[in-house]
Amino acid sequence: MNKIAYHPIGYIKSPIISPQDAPIQPTGARDITGQIVIDRQYSDGLRDLAGFSHIIVLYHLHKHKPYKLICKPFLDDVEHGVFAIRAPNRPNPIGFSVVRLTKVVDNVIYISDVDMIDGTPILDIKPYVPKFDAYPEAKAGWLEKKAERSEHYKSDNRFMVD
Amino acid sequence: MNKIAYHPIGYIKSPIISPQDAPIQPTGARDITGQIVIDRQYSDGLRDLAGFSHIIVLYHLHKHKPYKLICKPFLDDVEHGVFAIRAPNRPNPIGFSVVRLTKVVDNVIYISDVDMIDGTPILDIKPYVPKFDAYPEAKAGWLEKKAERSEHYKSDNRFMVD
Repeated sequence: MNKIAYHPIGYIKSPIISPQDAPIQPTGARDITGQIVIDRQYSDGLRDLAGFSHIIVLYHLHKHKPYKLICKPFLDDVEHGVFAIRAPNRPNPIGFSVVRLTKVVDNVIYISDVDMIDGTPILDIKPYVPKFDAYPEAKAGWLEKKAERSEHYKSDNRFMVD
Repeated sequence: MNKIAYHPIGYIKSPIISPQDAPIQPTGARDITGQIVIDRQYSDGLRDLAGFSHIIVLYHLHKHKPYKLICKPFLDDVEHGVFAIRAPNRPNPIGFSVVRLTKVVDNVIYISDVDMIDGTPILDIKPYVPKFDAYPEAKAGWLEKKAERSEHYKSDNRFMVD
């Protein structure tokens, strides 16, 4: 199949330096603050973003290990398919997080609930729109009960390289 | 900045053939059904996905026009920055949709609320987990009132090539 090429539009500044210390979701990163530093050539694209309380961040999981199609996630002792878990080692290692937006100053987006490690390359920013994105009644399969525990878990070296 | 290369893991089968007929969000695609046909080499990665009612689909917007940093979205008459709108012409044209999962049969995922056009290359599938992804109280900036109208809009040729 054809290759698709993207370029980072910026990078994450985060207090999380090592993959081992990373929360496994923004729910476990409550109040950890960081910045998305957008390359200055894209600054104009941030106009009116500050009106949104949450943003969708798509990023390249640059520290991922090679993927396995079946693996054991942090939140279970049972193996699941890679497309049924949120682990970072994926055929295309694209990370997805919903984070809280604090403010936008020039080319810098200040955010809370940061679960990305320092230096993560950013691919895209989209405004979070509840009408399009919030399905609180969705059924979460094997994660139905286990997602609650995500706040208390840290990552380990299972999926990421140092 | 460094180039990042991904490969499609599969393709969308959808009744939406032309970009002009595409709904602008899954909210405008209610009950439009389609399939995600995953390349057979990745079939094992779908194990246990069927327990989830909604999935996150990341895809390459292969019909996009070149991006503009400031542009007028479908739902407003005022220009906004590209990172504050959901239009497909972006520096990295990665599409994001939450769709309803009907069933998984072998390497095919049957879905509803399809707003992608036929032949769209798929980059990643993630399970939708309300605990991580649903923020019904989020404030939607300039879209706060306008998102409601998304159900009644169709796309046009503003952002996409035929």
